[in-house]
Amino acid sequence: MKKYAIIVAGGTGRRMGSAMPKQFLLLHDKPVLYYTLKTFLEAYEDLQIVLVLPEDYSDIGKEVIDAYFDYSRIQVTFGGETRFHSVQNGLQLVEDESIIFVHDAVRCLVSLDLIRECYEHASIMGTAVPVIRPKDSIRLLNEENNDNEVLDRNKVVMVQTPQTFHSKILLPAFKIDYKEQFTDEATVVESFGLKISLIEGEENNIKITRPSDLLIAEALLAELKES
Amino acid sequence: MKKYAIIVAGGTGRRMGSAMPKQFLLLHDKPVLYYTLKTFLEAYEDLQIVLVLPEDYSDIGKEVIDAYFDYSRIQVTFGGETRFHSVQNGLQLVEDESIIFVHDAVRCLVSLDLIRECYEHASIMGTAVPVIRPKDSIRLLNEENNDNEVLDRNKVVMVQTPQTFHSKILLPAFKIDYKEQFTDEATVVESFGLKISLIEGEENNIKITRPSDLLIAEALLAELKES
Repeated sequence: MKKYAIIVAGGTGRRMGSAMPKQFLLLHDKPVLYYTLKTFLEAYEDLQIVLVLPEDYSDIGKEVIDAYFDYSRIQVTFGGETRFHSVQNGLQLVEDESIIFVHDAVRCLVSLDLIRECYEHASIMGTAVPVIRPKDSIRLLNEENNDNEVLDRNKVVMVQTPQTFHSKILLPAFKIDYKEQFTDEATVVESFGLKISLIEGEENNIKITRPSDLLIAEALLAELKES
Repeated sequence: MKKYAIIVAGGTGRRMGSAMPKQFLLLHDKPVLYYTLKTFLEAYEDLQIVLVLPEDYSDIGKEVIDAYFDYSRIQVTFGGETRFHSVQNGLQLVEDESIIFVHDAVRCLVSLDLIRECYEHASIMGTAVPVIRPKDSIRLLNEENNDNEVLDRNKVVMVQTPQTFHSKILLPAFKIDYKEQFTDEATVVESFGLKISLIEGEENNIKITRPSDLLIAEALLAELKES
């Protein structure tokens, strides 16, 4: 089946305390985005990438492609107001009868294995969302009475990407009007009335959101190279 | 007020794929446990440590004290069957009219600031449990119907240590019989009928549970030294 990876690099990274959005920061001398694109391109020879760039930084994004890749397998579009709008823009460039990965550009340590497991699972189940178990206890805040309660840790999972869907599910789901609770693609598909199928994610599939995450990613990357 | 830190190093680290429990693995040539003990001893000159060691590894634990510290401010006891039992053993060595920190030995990057904020907060509120916001979406599994649902991320927090309590709360709370849901001290205190007061934790206050967490901790530690 056709394969598309929508790589969402739409954010401008206000949390990083850095002028440069985090997907363009360097990790062992190469931009974070380089690693993400490289892994998806390697996962399947017939996979096409739709890279969603923040409009103000599209030149830098294109420089990454020029330096390391070419445009035969990468199309570029611009991010929208929210992640939902960014993905909606990306889906304009996707054909039906495909498996669509939606991935955070800043999760640059995603493995080939995880991408392929998401594909296999979504091919059968229609959806595949990778999750991991939290290491810490989780509490739920109740702001009404300023209280909080522990959740059963065995019932809680943390959601990663690539969130992966059959186009027959994702394309119609994204025709919906934006709602504030759409924090990822799974929530959009649920709002469309469908259930989400979870698969086991990866501890190393971290999201780079703070400066120290870059150090962490460099350490993990060095380890991967050695092994 | 008197101050005790119960440092829980009772685990034997089956998750690490290493013969050595993780609190004794080396981080920049010193054991993980060294950093944890050092920070607590530095936080307050009148703080006493109760180190809860796994019985099978008590020699190694004592070697850490011999090499870097002395016994004037550190008492040693042995871990029990669960974390609850380990803390219960540690509390045998604690006097009343004190503030008691209970801390994971493997959270070796805890800061002086966080320890002191926990103390101040628990002095007033009776309890102080540090929490951070998750970076990822969180889902709750419903095993009965093999379903899952997203939680409002703004209402979810991840719990760290030092979980800090006034002795008037913690000592009587730990006289209870063990229950399976006692995953940390907060759950024990709640079971005693009291509410938990949360404070802001720290992103760097990570728990070392996997080999790659050691690399992460080394990277964060190197950054702390530079700053």
